[in-house]
Amino acid sequence: MWQLTEDVFLLETLGVRESLFTIGNGYLGMRGYHDEGTPIETSSVRGSYINGVYARVPMHFGERAVGFPEQADKQPRIMETQSVELRLDGERVFLDTAGVSDYSRMLDFKTGILKKTYTYTTSTGKKALVESMKMISFTESNLCLQHWSIAFPGEIEFMTVLDGNVQNYVNENDPRVAQGHAKLIETKACRSDLDCLYLLSEVSSSGIQIACGSVETLSNAKQVRAVVTETEHGVFKNFKAVNSLELDRYVYVTDSRFEDVSAAVVSRELHRLKTLGVEALLQAQGEYLEKFWERSDIEIFGNNHLQQAIRFNLFQLLQSVGKDGFSNLSAKGLSGEGYEGHYFWDTEIYALPLLSLTQPEIAKQLLVFRWNQLPEAIAEARGMGHEQGAKYPWRTISGIESSGFFPAGTAQYHINADIAYGIIRYYQLTGDEKFLRGMGLDMLVETSRFWISVGQWVAGEFCINCVTGPDEYTALVNNNFYTNAMAQHQLLWLSEYLKKLAHKAPKSLETICSRLGLTQVEMWAFERAGTCMNLPRDKSLGIDLQDDQFMNRAPWPFEQVGKDKYPLLLHYHPLIIYRHQVLKQADTVLAHLMLPNISDLETMKRSFDYYEALTTHDSSLSSCVYGTMAARLGEKKKAWQYFMESVEIDLGNTHGNTKDGLHMANIAGSCLTIIQGFAGLSVSEEGLELSPWVPDEMDGYKFKVLWQGTLVTITAIKGQPVQVVCGLGKEVPLHVTENQ
Amino acid sequence: MWQLTEDVFLLETLGVRESLFTIGNGYLGMRGYHDEGTPIETSSVRGSYINGVYARVPMHFGERAVGFPEQADKQPRIMETQSVELRLDGERVFLDTAGVSDYSRMLDFKTGILKKTYTYTTSTGKKALVESMKMISFTESNLCLQHWSIAFPGEIEFMTVLDGNVQNYVNENDPRVAQGHAKLIETKACRSDLDCLYLLSEVSSSGIQIACGSVETLSNAKQVRAVVTETEHGVFKNFKAVNSLELDRYVYVTDSRFEDVSAAVVSRELHRLKTLGVEALLQAQGEYLEKFWERSDIEIFGNNHLQQAIRFNLFQLLQSVGKDGFSNLSAKGLSGEGYEGHYFWDTEIYALPLLSLTQPEIAKQLLVFRWNQLPEAIAEARGMGHEQGAKYPWRTISGIESSGFFPAGTAQYHINADIAYGIIRYYQLTGDEKFLRGMGLDMLVETSRFWISVGQWVAGEFCINCVTGPDEYTALVNNNFYTNAMAQHQLLWLSEYLKKLAHKAPKSLETICSRLGLTQVEMWAFERAGTCMNLPRDKSLGIDLQDDQFMNRAPWPFEQVGKDKYPLLLHYHPLIIYRHQVLKQADTVLAHLMLPNISDLETMKRSFDYYEALTTHDSSLSSCVYGTMAARLGEKKKAWQYFMESVEIDLGNTHGNTKDGLHMANIAGSCLTIIQGFAGLSVSEEGLELSPWVPDEMDGYKFKVLWQGTLVTITAIKGQPVQVVCGLGKEVPLHVTENQ
Repeated sequence: MWQLTEDVFLLETLGVRESLFTIGNGYLGMRGYHDEGTPIETSSVRGSYINGVYARVPMHFGERAVGFPEQADKQPRIMETQSVELRLDGERVFLDTAGVSDYSRMLDFKTGILKKTYTYTTSTGKKALVESMKMISFTESNLCLQHWSIAFPGEIEFMTVLDGNVQNYVNENDPRVAQGHAKLIETKACRSDLDCLYLLSEVSSSGIQIACGSVETLSNAKQVRAVVTETEHGVFKNFKAVNSLELDRYVYVTDSRFEDVSAAVVSRELHRLKTLGVEALLQAQGEYLEKFWERSDIEIFGNNHLQQAIRFNLFQLLQSVGKDGFSNLSAKGLSGEGYEGHYFWDTEIYALPLLSLTQPEIAKQLLVFRWNQLPEAIAEARGMGHEQGAKYPWRTISGIESSGFFPAGTAQYHINADIAYGIIRYYQLTGDEKFLRGMGLDMLVETSRFWISVGQWVAGEFCINCVTGPDEYTALVNNNFYTNAMAQHQLLWLSEYLKKLAHKAPKSLETICSRLGLTQVEMWAFERAGTCMNLPRDKSLGIDLQDDQFMNRAPWPFEQVGKDKYPLLLHYHPLIIYRHQVLKQADTVLAHLMLPNISDLETMKRSFDYYEALTTHDSSLSSCVYGTMAARLGEKKKAWQYFMESVEIDLGNTHGNTKDGLHMANIAGSCLTIIQGFAGLSVSEEGLELSPWVPDEMDGYKFKVLWQGTLVTITAIKGQPVQVVCGLGKEVPLHVTENQ
Repeated sequence: MWQLTEDVFLLETLGVRESLFTIGNGYLGMRGYHDEGTPIETSSVRGSYINGVYARVPMHFGERAVGFPEQADKQPRIMETQSVELRLDGERVFLDTAGVSDYSRMLDFKTGILKKTYTYTTSTGKKALVESMKMISFTESNLCLQHWSIAFPGEIEFMTVLDGNVQNYVNENDPRVAQGHAKLIETKACRSDLDCLYLLSEVSSSGIQIACGSVETLSNAKQVRAVVTETEHGVFKNFKAVNSLELDRYVYVTDSRFEDVSAAVVSRELHRLKTLGVEALLQAQGEYLEKFWERSDIEIFGNNHLQQAIRFNLFQLLQSVGKDGFSNLSAKGLSGEGYEGHYFWDTEIYALPLLSLTQPEIAKQLLVFRWNQLPEAIAEARGMGHEQGAKYPWRTISGIESSGFFPAGTAQYHINADIAYGIIRYYQLTGDEKFLRGMGLDMLVETSRFWISVGQWVAGEFCINCVTGPDEYTALVNNNFYTNAMAQHQLLWLSEYLKKLAHKAPKSLETICSRLGLTQVEMWAFERAGTCMNLPRDKSLGIDLQDDQFMNRAPWPFEQVGKDKYPLLLHYHPLIIYRHQVLKQADTVLAHLMLPNISDLETMKRSFDYYEALTTHDSSLSSCVYGTMAARLGEKKKAWQYFMESVEIDLGNTHGNTKDGLHMANIAGSCLTIIQGFAGLSVSEEGLELSPWVPDEMDGYKFKVLWQGTLVTITAIKGQPVQVVCGLGKEVPLHVTENQ
C-alpha cells in the first residue's frame, strides 16, 4: 500500500505508465520512461522538466485583436540525462516483450525510490540480470541519483548521455496538448572529461540557461574502461566491462534563474554530492518522506486498493508541486507536456485546499509565487484597458497570459477570486498575519480593485458581465454564479478583515493603506459590491442559476448524442455547445462546495440534481467536485461513484490522456473528497467543522489537519463515534455533526 | 462632374490615391499606382487582382477547436503587368516632386479611361513630355489597354514587364488587413518573342493558374529597337528610341477557372484584340458606359462637388462588382488588399439593393454566385454539427468560411438572412420567377432550414441564441434584433410565397418540393417560427432592443474616451468592449431600414436616438445607414451630416485606411441614402413607395428605377412636386407621400 508496482512488461500504453511512474521533487521531474529504450516509441514521451522554466512561443490568431497575447509561455523539455544504451555481447538491449522476463518495477512512496529489475535473454540465449534504481532527491533539489547493476556472462557495453537534441511533444489535433513549437532549447556548450560530463543549453526564446552534469562511481572500476564522446548536441560516456557492471550515477540539473550554471559550479556540486554518498542521500530521502507522511497521510481502513491509490495521489502531488516561491503546480505537474506546462486555477481551488491542511509551508510558497507575478497581473489589467487592479492570467508560467482563445481563457476572471480564496484559506488555517498583511493584502486589494473596475450596478445589484465561469461549455455570460459568489467571498472577507484590523491594529492598517494607496472610500466600495453582489437564482426551480441566461438555453439532446461524442469539445463547434444547457464540469456546484454558506441546503441539493443531469464531466476537474459535494449532501451512493471515477482517472486512464501527464487537480481533488466530503470538513478562522460518515466500501479513514499550529488527528471508523485528537495539550475550536 | 482629377503630384498619401484611381471591369482590377515608380513607396500598394481567384492560406489559432477553419481564402496579388522603367538619356524617371511639373491625372467615368500627363525635367535640365492612357475594358473582360507617348530631345529607353515576383501587402498590427502570407503565386512559365510576351503563374495553394500576355504596336516602329529579356520570374521588353516614342500596349490577363491559359490562347486573343484596334475598343468602352449611365446615373442639381462624388461611387462600384456568377464584390472591390479580398454581407445588404434597382442582370449574377456556393454552405452547417440547412460563410472567396475569430465572424448567422433578403429584393424588382423557383428557392429553403435548426422555443417564442449581430462590439448574444427580424422576414416571405404558389402553380410547387425534399410540416415550421419570432423590445424606453441583455451592459464612458481611441477595436480588448453599451455600427437601426414595417415610426425614432448616442461608427458601414434612416425619419440635418460623412470616407480618407482599398459597401450605401433616404423609396412586389424631400444643400436630384421591366424616372426639385415618369406606355403601382 506504499508502492506503485507493475510485474508485467507491456509495450502498449507505454505513455500512460511513463506518467504514472514519474519521479520528481517539485523542482525537477522525470517521466517514467524506460532508460534503455523500447522498440516502439509512438506513445512514449521521454521527457524531463524543470518547474518554472519557460520558453516563449509566438501566438498566432486567424484575426488578432487588441490585448491578445503576442507570446505564450511553454514548458520546454530539458536535456535528456536518463537514456542509456546497453549492449550485451554487442547486442543492443531494448525493453521488449520478447527479450524481457521476470520484469518488475516499483515506485516506493516511503523511500522515494523507483526500482526496476528484469532478466534479459539475448538472441544467443544468454541471460543478463539488470537492476536499476533511481531517485530525485527531495533534500537536494538538483539531484537525480541512479544505480545500475548488470550481471551478464559476457561483454557489457553501457553508454550514458547528456543530450541536448530534444524536442517537445506536439499533436495538431488535440487542443489539450501543444499544437506546435517542438524545438525549444539549443545546446550552448558541452564539456567532457572522464571525471565529469557537462552540458549547457539555452531556452532560446526566454534566455534561461539550463545546465546538467553527471559523474559516476564504479564498484568494480578496475575492470571497466570508459570512453567519452562529444558531439554537437551532447556528451556520451561509454563503459565497457565483462561479467558485471555496478555503477552509481549522480546527475545534477540546474538553471540560470537562481544559480550560476557554469561547469565549475556543476562539477563542484557533483563532487559534494559524491562525497556525501549514496547511502546518506537515500537516508535523507527516507527521512524527508517520513515527515511528510506523518502529517499528510490519509489512512483508509479496509480497502487496500483505495489506500494505495490515495497514497499514490498524495505522493505524486508532493513530487510535482513547486516549493520555492518561483514555481507552481502545472496542470500535469512535472509528469507530462499536456497544457504546455501551464499553471491554472487548479492550484488554488484543488491543490492548495489540500496542501494547506498539512503542508502550510508549501501552500505559502504557491501564494508567494502569485505575489511574485503581481506586477504582470497589474500590467495585464492595464493592457486590456482596465484603469485599476490586477488580472491574473488564466494560464501561465512566467506571469504572462498564455491563453490562445480568450472566451475560454482570459475571460475566466474567476482566477482572481480563486487566488484570493487560496490566500484566505491559507490564513484561516495558519493565522499567518505576517504573510496576510504583506503579500496577502497586496494581492487581495489589487484583485478586489479589478472586480470594482469590471462590475456594474444594475437595479441596485453589483453585476459581473461578459465573463466565463469554470464551465467552459458556455462563454461570455452575465453573472456567472461561481464567479460572483467567489468575488463576493473575497470582497466581504477583505472588508471584514480590514475592519477588524482597524480595531485591532490601526497602525498596521495605516501602513498598509499608505503602501497600497487604499482609501476608506475604496474599502466601502469593496463592501458595497460584496454585499450587493448579484447571485442569479431561479425561484420556480429553487436552484442557483449558473448565469443570467442559463434557462434560455436549449436542452442538450443527451438522448441522441452518445458518449462516443465525449468530450463534446472534440466533436462540436463551440457555438453549438454554447447554445445549449450542457456543462463540461461543475460550476454552480463548485461554488456550493467552496462556499458552504452561500445557499441553503435544499437549494444546494436541488442545484446538484439539476446540474448533475446536464454535466458531461468532459473535464477531469469535475468528478471530484461532484463526489465531494454528493458526500456533503448525503448522496452516499453517488459520492462513492464519483469518488472512484476521480480516483481512477489516471490509474485507470479513464480520460484516455494520462500519457500527456497526470491530472494534478483531480489527484488533489480525490483526496479532498475524503476530507471535505466523507469527513465533511469545513475551515474558517473560527475553527473546524466536521460532519463525517464512512462509505460502505471501507471500514474507515484517518487524516490530520494542522490548524493554527496544532495538529488535529481525525479518525472515523464505521459504527464508532468520530475520534478527534489534538496535539499535546492543545485545543482547537471544533464542531462535529454526527452523520453516520 | 464626370471625372476624378488631380493636378498636383504629391508623394504623400500615394496609397490613398492609388485606391481612388483604381480601374477595373469586375473581372480584372488594377490600383492606380504610378507605372513609372516613385522614389518612396512605403504607402504604395502596387497591386492588380482577378475577382474570384483565391489562394488558400493555413489558419492558425492559439487554441484550435472543432469547426475552426483549417484554411482561409485569400485574394492573391496577380503578376505585375503595368510597371515600366523609363530612362531619358540613361536617367531613370521616377515620379517625384523635383522632376515632375504640369502634372495632371484624370479618371473619366464616361469614357472609362485613366489619363496622365506631365513634364519631366532631367538633371541636365532637358524636358520630356510624358502622356499615358489606360483602360480596362468592360466589353473585353481580359483586356487592359495602354497608350504611352513620350517626347524627349534625346535617347528614350522604355521597359515593360510581365513580372511574377510579386507579394501581397501585410500588416501585423491591423486586423482589417492581412497579417501574414505575402507570397501567394509562383511562376510556372515565361515565353518571349518580339511579338508577344507570355507569363504563367500558379496560385500554389489553390492550383488556379493565371496567365498574362502583352503585345505592343508602335507608331514610329522603324526608329525603335526592342530587346526582350527573360528571367526566372518574368519577361521584360526594352525599347530604345530617339526623340519620341509612341506605343500602344495590349495586356491580356486570364485564369484557368474558365479558360485555357496556354500561350497559344493568349497570343491568339492578343492578336484578335490588336486587329480590333485601339479606336474600336475605346468606342466600345464609351458605348458600354453610356448605357450604364443612362439607367444608373443619379443626378444631383445644384451641388457639383456632390454630383462628382456620387458618380465616382457609382463608377467604382461598377468597376469592382463581379458579373459572371463566379465572382462577387469584395469589401474593397478590386481596389486593394484590405480584408484579404473577402466577400461579406456587404454585397446583399449594401450593394445589391442599389444594383437591383437599375442593373438587375448584375444583381442576379451576384445571387448566382451564392447559389454556386450552396454546397459549401451546406457542408459548413454539417461540419459545425447542424443536421439540416445551409450556413453561408461570413467571409469567403471560394465558399469556405474564412473567419479567423468566430465570435465576430462565423457567429454572424445573419449572413443567411442577408442573402435571403437579396434574393427577395431581386425578385420584388424583377418578378424573375424562373430564378426564384430555381436557384432562389434552393437558397431560401436551405437557409430557412438552418434557422429552424438553430432556433429554440422559449415561452412560446422562437429564439435565436448565441449569435453575433452586425454590431461587432457585442458578440454571442441572445435574440439579436437585426438577426431575428431578418430571419423572420425570410421565413414569413418564403411561407407566403409558397402558399401563393400552391394556389397559382401547384404543379410547380410539387416539383420544387420534390427537388428540395420540402414537406408541408416544414413549411408550417417556417411559418410558425417566423410568426412567433422573438423581437426584443424595451417597453419602458419604447425602443427595440439590440439583444436580450443589452440593457444590462454598462454605459460606455464616452466622456472619458476621446476619439483618438477610435476605432475602439484598435485600443481595447474585446472583453472590455463587449461589456458595454457601445456600438461599432448600426444594428437595430439597420433592421429598421431594411424592414420599414418591422416597428412603428415612433419606436424607430426613439430607437434611432437611443442607439445613435451609443455608436462610434468605427465601421465604414455605419454612417450611410444612419444617414438613410435619418432621412426617412425626417431628421434632415443629421441625414445630411451622415450622408456627407459617408460620401467623404474614401474621397476624404476619413477612416485613414483608404490605402487598403475603397469601402465598397459605403460607396453603395451613400448612393442609397439619396434613393432610399431623401427620396424615401421602398420596394415590394406590390410596387414602389416614395416619400421624397430635397436637402437644403442641393436643388434636387433625379434617378431611375427599373420595376418589373419598366423604367421609372424620379425627379425631385426643391419646391416642386416630385415628378415620376414611367417608360413609354407603361404604368407602375406607386405611392408618393409628399414630404417637402
